[in-house]
Amino acid sequence: MIFGNPLPEASRLTVTGGSTTLAMADAKWFLRGITSNERYVTRQEKDQFVAKQQGLGRPNAICAALIPIRKKPSWWLLPQDERRRILEECSKHVAIGMKYLPAVARRLHHCRDLGDNEPFDFLTWFEYAASDAAAFDDLVAQLRASEEWNYVDRDTDVRLIRDDF
Amino acid sequence: MIFGNPLPEASRLTVTGGSTTLAMADAKWFLRGITSNERYVTRQEKDQFVAKQQGLGRPNAICAALIPIRKKPSWWLLPQDERRRILEECSKHVAIGMKYLPAVARRLHHCRDLGDNEPFDFLTWFEYAASDAAAFDDLVAQLRASEEWNYVDRDTDVRLIRDDF
Repeated sequence: MIFGNPLPEASRLTVTGGSTTLAMADAKWFLRGITSNERYVTRQEKDQFVAKQQGLGRPNAICAALIPIRKKPSWWLLPQDERRRILEECSKHVAIGMKYLPAVARRLHHCRDLGDNEPFDFLTWFEYAASDAAAFDDLVAQLRASEEWNYVDRDTDVRLIRDDF
Repeated sequence: MIFGNPLPEASRLTVTGGSTTLAMADAKWFLRGITSNERYVTRQEKDQFVAKQQGLGRPNAICAALIPIRKKPSWWLLPQDERRRILEECSKHVAIGMKYLPAVARRLHHCRDLGDNEPFDFLTWFEYAASDAAAFDDLVAQLRASEEWNYVDRDTDVRLIRDDF
């Protein structure tokens, strides 16, 4: 269930780090985000994540997904306790991600506070083995069926296979 | 108690909105930040703030302060529940600000997620009447004496008087 303006089709995606702006005259689109501090997880959840998660770049994790989303203004007007309640106590966002560790590695990038006109609020990057592709589909289906997703107004989904394996 | 590298002295300060970069060849320094969603306050605290606070630009609020701060990496590694506990349950950051409403109006700008090399994490802008200057000094003294300030590694304080009153 993808909604909001889609991104133009592209046959390849390059991920670059750092704050250099690449000259990519032939790029059909370009998204930027920044890793940041945790916004919702508790100490207990963070310790569980650290114990279970694996890093990006595992040799057998040849599948990737880039899921850029934007949340509604009504989400951003909520105070912290109400956003946490919707995200976790109602929607189990953290717990769902935990279930798929270490199979699905994840890195979250924040965009909303980069400027006034960012097209998305978050870019989440996932990596997993081909044998975990169905599990990854389950993960995103559960999140998209959650209460939290009522606050999402743009949701895109780019699936990739690494070309150097 | 100001610590970390100070800003060069300047005789005037201009505050501009929007994302345009001004050509200010003669500026001694330039700081940028973005207003964002609440990170810590609960629904109850937010409703109290909204009921008590007044906006910026009040004719008699001719005094202002700009307090740029940066927090230590150890702060940013804490999970959300521990940062909230230090900020409010230990340090009463929200409650202290509330005590001085509506006298001291405030706007918080976030810098940390603008890029990899921002000099500060937050720029807080305060406005108050000359008759509330001592109250404002009390407010910042209480915050600087709090547990939360153990996590601050750069703290600057720029005091201003409006020149058009």
